[in-house]
Amino acid sequence: MQQPKIKVTDAFWQQYRHLVKDVMIPYQWSVINDDATVEIEQENANSYKATEKSHAIQNLKIAAGRESGDFYGFWFQDSDVYKWLEAVAYALRYQPDQQLQQIADDLVDLISQAQEPDGYLDTFFQLQAPQEKFQHISFGHELYCMGHYIEAGIAYFETTGNTLALTIATKMADCINTHFGPQPDKLHGYPGHPEVELALAKLADTTNDQRYRDLAAYLINQRGQQSPNFFAEQNAKNKNKQLDLPFPDQTDPADRYFQNDRPIRELDHAEGHAVRMTYLLTGMAHVARQTQDDDLLATCQRLWRDIVDKQMYVTGGIGATVAGEAFTYDYDLPNDTMYCETCASCAMVFFAKQMLANEPDGDYADVMERELYNGTISGMSLDAQHFFYVNPLEVDPQASAQDPTKSHVKVQRPAWFGCACCPPNLARLIASVDQYIYTIKDDTIYSNQFIANHADFGDGLQINQSGNYPWSGQISYQVSVESALTFAFALRIPAWSQENFTVKLNGHPVNGTLKRGYLFLNQTWSGTTTIEVDLDLSVRTVRADQHVTADLGKIAVQRGPVVYCAEETDNGKNLAWLSLPVQPDFQVHSANQGLAVPNLKTITTNATKLVTSSNQTSTALYTSDTAPRSRQNQQVTLIPYFAWANRQAGEMRVWLDQD
Amino acid sequence: MQQPKIKVTDAFWQQYRHLVKDVMIPYQWSVINDDATVEIEQENANSYKATEKSHAIQNLKIAAGRESGDFYGFWFQDSDVYKWLEAVAYALRYQPDQQLQQIADDLVDLISQAQEPDGYLDTFFQLQAPQEKFQHISFGHELYCMGHYIEAGIAYFETTGNTLALTIATKMADCINTHFGPQPDKLHGYPGHPEVELALAKLADTTNDQRYRDLAAYLINQRGQQSPNFFAEQNAKNKNKQLDLPFPDQTDPADRYFQNDRPIRELDHAEGHAVRMTYLLTGMAHVARQTQDDDLLATCQRLWRDIVDKQMYVTGGIGATVAGEAFTYDYDLPNDTMYCETCASCAMVFFAKQMLANEPDGDYADVMERELYNGTISGMSLDAQHFFYVNPLEVDPQASAQDPTKSHVKVQRPAWFGCACCPPNLARLIASVDQYIYTIKDDTIYSNQFIANHADFGDGLQINQSGNYPWSGQISYQVSVESALTFAFALRIPAWSQENFTVKLNGHPVNGTLKRGYLFLNQTWSGTTTIEVDLDLSVRTVRADQHVTADLGKIAVQRGPVVYCAEETDNGKNLAWLSLPVQPDFQVHSANQGLAVPNLKTITTNATKLVTSSNQTSTALYTSDTAPRSRQNQQVTLIPYFAWANRQAGEMRVWLDQD
Repeated sequence: MQQPKIKVTDAFWQQYRHLVKDVMIPYQWSVINDDATVEIEQENANSYKATEKSHAIQNLKIAAGRESGDFYGFWFQDSDVYKWLEAVAYALRYQPDQQLQQIADDLVDLISQAQEPDGYLDTFFQLQAPQEKFQHISFGHELYCMGHYIEAGIAYFETTGNTLALTIATKMADCINTHFGPQPDKLHGYPGHPEVELALAKLADTTNDQRYRDLAAYLINQRGQQSPNFFAEQNAKNKNKQLDLPFPDQTDPADRYFQNDRPIRELDHAEGHAVRMTYLLTGMAHVARQTQDDDLLATCQRLWRDIVDKQMYVTGGIGATVAGEAFTYDYDLPNDTMYCETCASCAMVFFAKQMLANEPDGDYADVMERELYNGTISGMSLDAQHFFYVNPLEVDPQASAQDPTKSHVKVQRPAWFGCACCPPNLARLIASVDQYIYTIKDDTIYSNQFIANHADFGDGLQINQSGNYPWSGQISYQVSVESALTFAFALRIPAWSQENFTVKLNGHPVNGTLKRGYLFLNQTWSGTTTIEVDLDLSVRTVRADQHVTADLGKIAVQRGPVVYCAEETDNGKNLAWLSLPVQPDFQVHSANQGLAVPNLKTITTNATKLVTSSNQTSTALYTSDTAPRSRQNQQVTLIPYFAWANRQAGEMRVWLDQD
Repeated sequence: MQQPKIKVTDAFWQQYRHLVKDVMIPYQWSVINDDATVEIEQENANSYKATEKSHAIQNLKIAAGRESGDFYGFWFQDSDVYKWLEAVAYALRYQPDQQLQQIADDLVDLISQAQEPDGYLDTFFQLQAPQEKFQHISFGHELYCMGHYIEAGIAYFETTGNTLALTIATKMADCINTHFGPQPDKLHGYPGHPEVELALAKLADTTNDQRYRDLAAYLINQRGQQSPNFFAEQNAKNKNKQLDLPFPDQTDPADRYFQNDRPIRELDHAEGHAVRMTYLLTGMAHVARQTQDDDLLATCQRLWRDIVDKQMYVTGGIGATVAGEAFTYDYDLPNDTMYCETCASCAMVFFAKQMLANEPDGDYADVMERELYNGTISGMSLDAQHFFYVNPLEVDPQASAQDPTKSHVKVQRPAWFGCACCPPNLARLIASVDQYIYTIKDDTIYSNQFIANHADFGDGLQINQSGNYPWSGQISYQVSVESALTFAFALRIPAWSQENFTVKLNGHPVNGTLKRGYLFLNQTWSGTTTIEVDLDLSVRTVRADQHVTADLGKIAVQRGPVVYCAEETDNGKNLAWLSLPVQPDFQVHSANQGLAVPNLKTITTNATKLVTSSNQTSTALYTSDTAPRSRQNQQVTLIPYFAWANRQAGEMRVWLDQD
């Protein structure tokens, strides 16, 4: 049994994948080439600076000697190009396009030309301070950018066979290997922004060259080793250098921001910059498998539990504070000031995938699903040309406009960002969503996601999954073999449906206990077998652990994996005045409320809303009135969270008061 | 009838006034002389920088030529000295002290020596950039510092007759008058930090020199006049100058921060930096009276209403966001991220006093009382040696420590601040609290505050007010005249007692309707008349207007003017889990819970608290449980808000959930 070739047929994801291929990829190409007229927004009132253009391709052209000029943009601008290339690699698999492939081939040539003979490639340092390479590791992003290229190069090579794309990647990895490692003459460092670890682990798989695996392991194990603290030591040396890279404010202690306050195996709490933490965990989980390092795996498990049980929003968002875009402390989940970066949710999907490959457990797939249908795709508009960096759970346009501490909470998706990490990250995730459906381990096929697809596992085994998820809970699988084959098919039953679901095998109900969230169908398969699953898609209220102060007395509404929210455009202003009954009478509707998503379901419920009483005795801000406030009945309309901010700007809330 | 000479006899305020005279004044003197060993705290993780010492007196000595060295500290460091001097001036009135007076006289000599011949005095510019005086008006603080001196000089002159103290002030005012005004050769500017307006208005009263009144009026009326915008124009000119004063982050648009986005008379919403706004309003209210400018008065009235009805915390705190220490928008009153600077509450007392002098209205005195018993004195510890800059209504030590966006919310009062505006501001307010008790207008004596005192109004009229306020609602006045005298005595009945109070005149109940919050006793007084007032000091629950989202479903507890709060040390952790019944059974206790305040009353009430259920089915952060959460009965102990953070560090809450 081998990794399947998958053709996604799913209506929900096909829409997104076509948007990626037909809209996002051309749009992002025009942005990184400075051909698009976009207003590039500042992330928040306090952010470094707005950039006026991307200049990312131009930086590569200058480094390649094709053009002259100065570097422009953030010092990690290269990565925008690489993530675009990676998205192209995946998109070409489901929608071949000779013209696009030619553009990408030319881009690979450009990148190769920009790369230095020793494999080094980082246009910021090449153009700004060539003598200071690898001397600003804490906040320089050389390893981050090269890591992103390595991922892109692998993907593009695997799609198109372009060997130059892979050679650039191995040259980069060799360059890093020359400079970093335990040997006395090398840097005993590790990247300020983890990413290259997961890329090197992938490269080891692709090339079967264990040096890359060992280098990834070194970078992981060296992280947080003290006496000396590598970053502190290098920063002290570099005080008088030409470059003065901005160091993030409000990161006290800075070492927590970088996850290098202690050896990584000693962490029991996900800390610091959320994307850094989860990229690091993704690499750790992969390397733990490659090196059979049970202790490293245990660290991943521990931190997974900390994030999922104590630091994750119901939408899958992570990073509770804008200061350092970071984790804070257990159960601190404010809904109107959080960060919940789109990239961080993407990274949780990457982390979950690696953990599933380590040890199939429905919890990993459940969280992956939470991210896929909520906190990741909320990062883009339904026109695929506007993007959120921050994904709030509660928005008041007045607050975003008039309280600078909430200026990072955008009310509508901007067209682009100065720091444009999120849009291409989302593009590559959506374009590769096929990679998250199945896991194969020990002769068992684990079905993790209900994304309709046709999968060819080789040796005559094909599985055709169909359905209309997430809007319908009925999913069916046609398992076809050419000759009889014995293996287990493990079907994830989402935690939210485990009390109520049915599975039928060729029409016969299957009874069986779930093991770690999966129903195992272990048999000798012959001919074509039909598996029909029926999940419980009744609307349910969700509440948070009582330690989450921000959500006390509140509920969220979920149907299947989809979290719903209330928007002002459907429900009027003052969403805080709404209150749902203890047992709401939910109705599910096919009316899409103007949201262009096929088969989208909206929900209505009875509720009440505070009214401003006409017989109020005073305009005083504070009174000793004790009479109950006046309420009136109001029907509330809820839409999927991922689709918010696609109509008129206004208030939005995920968590609503409950009577 | 003349402004009374007042001797405060009030137990509550005497304690504070002795602390000011015996502890704060010596302590602050040692700090500004760098004799005290104090840890000087950063205001928040993002603040300019920590300072290691005050250096304020040393700066003056260097400017005076007595010492050599460089300027050190904030560019408005001089004002710490002047506010100290002002506090001394007031303190010497109730506790003469030859030794202290000598120190202050010497200080006046030093200040005089530091002053330049033309009256200019600002040690920052004198020592750092003497050629750039008055060229950085937006964020330079020359006018602010000189304004503070003028206030101090007047007070010290009035207490001691030291004419040099007054001369320094008039020379400063003359210097400002030379540089600012409508004439073509003068600067058509106004201070970035208002303060000098209120000082010049005071100086006009003291000296009877109307030039100072006119200068104040000019600075007020010029503010926000556009084309050109004075700050923008001057800042553009000064780009290449030596000084690069920090400009506050997160103030978009900066003009709102400075209240100069439009002519001040066009404002209908209190905006920008809260202390700037309220200092400006204080000066405006004074100048409106001096110049009989009804339109300016109407602006003050409008902005008073906006602040009090829409932008003020129940504690009197103002400034809802740390970003720019500023007002935000109506009803935006978050309890755990606010600013509520001690100085801003002091400024509201100053503003209220001026408005009372314009038009006696109980609302001004009510707000003054709210500030005096809550948001001002919460700025200092009961040992008078630790101070809050920020006065939060909800504190979680974990949030302050681990979410940098809440790092300005201190859990315990630091010993001093780099920017030390608040401690001396509070000292001068407390030392002059006698000035806030009575207003005389049109042959009526308005009793605004229930602060026990002996007042001599001249012409044989004396009023002795006694009581044990705010702990008791029984207040009595002995009005003595030498010969029969006709005047009205107007007694404020606080809004919270207007439904239930009694007033007796020589033992006979007085019936009368309140006019603008006052009961008017208009008669010919002879001999000694006793007025006995009995206010309703039953504990009451308070709720906020329903537009205040942060307080929905919550109540605060008040007794008389005192707002109460719950602290962890009395009630355990997780104060968010407490809920008070709709009709709490409040009990008032004399047990002071270890808080050294004479006669202090604490309150207990029945309540319930969430318990962590032992039969919880999962550790999942989100569940679809619908069963009510388990609660258990718990008695809750409440202490006065002003006394919080005087025992063990822990959680604190003013607003508590209600069933």
